Amino acid sequence: MVDIATRVWNHKWKIDPIVRSLIDTDFYKLLMCQSVFRNRPDTTVTFSLINRTKDVRLAELVDEGELREQLDHIRSLSLSRGESTWMRGNTFYGKRQMFTPEFMDWFEKLRLPPYHLEKRDGQYELTFEGKWPEVMLWEIPALAVLMELRSRAVLHDMARFELQVLYARAMTKLWEKVERLRGVEGLRIADFGTRRRHSFLWQDWCVQAMTERLGDNFVGTSNCLIAKNRDLEAIGTNAHELPMVYAALAEDDATLARAPYEVLSDWHDEHDGNLRIILPDTYGTEGFLDKAPDWLAGWTGIRIDSGDPATGAEIAIRWWKDRGEDPTRKLIIFSDGLDEEKILSLHKQFAGRVRVSFGWGTLLTNDFRGLTPGDALAPFSLVCKAVAADGKPTVKLSDNPRKAMGPEDQIERYKRVFGVGDQEEMEVVV
Amino acid sequence: MVDIATRVWNHKWKIDPIVRSLIDTDFYKLLMCQSVFRNRPDTTVTFSLINRTKDVRLAELVDEGELREQLDHIRSLSLSRGESTWMRGNTFYGKRQMFTPEFMDWFEKLRLPPYHLEKRDGQYELTFEGKWPEVMLWEIPALAVLMELRSRAVLHDMARFELQVLYARAMTKLWEKVERLRGVEGLRIADFGTRRRHSFLWQDWCVQAMTERLGDNFVGTSNCLIAKNRDLEAIGTNAHELPMVYAALAEDDATLARAPYEVLSDWHDEHDGNLRIILPDTYGTEGFLDKAPDWLAGWTGIRIDSGDPATGAEIAIRWWKDRGEDPTRKLIIFSDGLDEEKILSLHKQFAGRVRVSFGWGTLLTNDFRGLTPGDALAPFSLVCKAVAADGKPTVKLSDNPRKAMGPEDQIERYKRVFGVGDQEEMEVVV
Repeated sequence: MVDIATRVWNHKWKIDPIVRSLIDTDFYKLLMCQSVFRNRPDTTVTFSLINRTKDVRLAELVDEGELREQLDHIRSLSLSRGESTWMRGNTFYGKRQMFTPEFMDWFEKLRLPPYHLEKRDGQYELTFEGKWPEVMLWEIPALAVLMELRSRAVLHDMARFELQVLYARAMTKLWEKVERLRGVEGLRIADFGTRRRHSFLWQDWCVQAMTERLGDNFVGTSNCLIAKNRDLEAIGTNAHELPMVYAALAEDDATLARAPYEVLSDWHDEHDGNLRIILPDTYGTEGFLDKAPDWLAGWTGIRIDSGDPATGAEIAIRWWKDRGEDPTRKLIIFSDGLDEEKILSLHKQFAGRVRVSFGWGTLLTNDFRGLTPGDALAPFSLVCKAVAADGKPTVKLSDNPRKAMGPEDQIERYKRVFGVGDQEEMEVVV
Repeated sequence: MVDIATRVWNHKWKIDPIVRSLIDTDFYKLLMCQSVFRNRPDTTVTFSLINRTKDVRLAELVDEGELREQLDHIRSLSLSRGESTWMRGNTFYGKRQMFTPEFMDWFEKLRLPPYHLEKRDGQYELTFEGKWPEVMLWEIPALAVLMELRSRAVLHDMARFELQVLYARAMTKLWEKVERLRGVEGLRIADFGTRRRHSFLWQDWCVQAMTERLGDNFVGTSNCLIAKNRDLEAIGTNAHELPMVYAALAEDDATLARAPYEVLSDWHDEHDGNLRIILPDTYGTEGFLDKAPDWLAGWTGIRIDSGDPATGAEIAIRWWKDRGEDPTRKLIIFSDGLDEEKILSLHKQFAGRVRVSFGWGTLLTNDFRGLTPGDALAPFSLVCKAVAADGKPTVKLSDNPRKAMGPEDQIERYKRVFGVGDQEEMEVVV
């Protein structure tokens, strides 16, 4: 029986929107947005899309008109009443009123600022410029739109039956990963896969699979919309953009050297407990920890997002011990290029020595490797980063030089200021 | 959006019928029915359900009331106008009017005769008694109903998400088998999986998968309803019940010895070409071929349905050579307990030496092994056989003594009459 009403409803949309809500984004974006809204509301920033996987020629795969329609649709979104109620009334990390009435009043009125789009060398140049608290909210939806438009471009030529088999195989693949993680004592995993998901519906399915099979070992999702719809914990803290922008704004080398700690000082004033998580790798983990003020050792944990994760964790443990802290009461969050194998081995290596948690991203929500001819649906490494603040370029060094970004001369300057020596190059999987 | 009309429609059924058409059955049943209708219309037979997998306690799994509802529903079915048109007008094996107007007039008026159902020792005793052409049509729907009710009993306790994963895994499993068969030069496979299918919808899906992926290497399905709906060839010839009933009716040992050939003599008069397929194993392949009349060597092929298939094929090839026939023009149909591995090895061994074809049954349409805890959906060996004809017991010896059936004294008598010596026991997988 054909459901005419549903068909008519689906055809009413001029497009099939990928992002349908301003909270279809990562929780830490909203937390950081509030911090920026409070501390640096007038800073002007530029965010820019960077495709690190050059052989995925996005501008040849994805139609420019469709991309513009999706981005225009996002600009038409505003916070719904139910979403606002959830943000205002929900408990995050055990705390009520995480978002202040001032921030919520502002966020309720927000529409995302304009974008600038051009094609060059088979890639899209997509940039956003304006007030930091507004522009920063483009990152996640821009990435999700491009990832899903690429999926759609590949899926478009597949027959109905092929599609069914494709998703059956993808479900089976994910289910087998989740099965391997099941029942591992004390394992704590969250979904960090919004930005590079295959599609919204697929991320939603992956979250259900984790909920269903891992029970309490699945601690939540970074995606606010899914957290709201499925009654899950929204997970996340802070990211590189804070130190990158603070650093870019520094007037001299001494201020630059202090910038990453200034970020966390602002954060310290705003949050406690599980939200006090250090992301130490922006300008090299070792130097950051060596020079860190003592109050930072009192923070709850460290997130390791580049370099060899086991090495990073050992450095963190040693640092806590050196500062007289008990590592078994500290939390290490691994979030870089994880798959179930790496999760299991890291858990085995560190469980008991520290509290361990995993933010599983791209290979949770977009592992379509091996499922299509020519691997046309394999995930790729797309990022959207703050590249300038108040007209000055930003720099990221990271613990993996392949993840470094910024102008050459500034990179050298930052390396000098932060005392970063030789670094080990590692392949960037996703 | 809820499709209220569809939901109301689905709730209108008192039950959710498993068999919704008299042609949701194997093609050879209809061919044999026509032959019986013509040659032995007044013979009285008893068909009986036999579960060879004793540890699947059907009467504890399947509710008696539900089983009765399903069987009663089948008794309410009659041939629809579209079904009759298809049988009368379609080309089967290149031939028009395969079914005579006399047979069709009778079949259009047919309702299936009563059944007798009792529980004993955790199993159902389900028997059908009456005129052979009517009773014989119970076999396939009775098996399909019990198989699917067992599936439903297991599926009933699974959550919606579990069900989705289950079918995703089953699809992936089947797809991987079909992938292995894809592109094998000259491979010819048909679906023979109606009687032991997981469910009707699943068989229909399996047939679509074969159609989609194997192209011309998939030659058709034994299921008439699916053949009709999906515009495929209906495939099949004849089965053990013909020699079993003919043999049971024999007045003395000499008539008994001739019975299997008499069956084929009747068949010879009615059919030619691809429908002239010998099923030689009812009372032992070797003895049957040794004593076969010369005209049988002129038939198109042999179906091998028990014993070691390669041995059976070698015997057939030798027999054709002994009778001055060219085996490369003959057809061997393998149909016993096949899976993709066995199909590939038999094809490799015999392609070129004879024409080879495969009737893939239970492990095509019901391979849910390993997909549920305790393997609660693994296929099992359920059959529904003619056990008596005009009050006398039937006997089957087969090339695998574990598939033999009938009273002990009659088995001994048949072994003597047909000169069957020692036989190799083989596990009955499905």
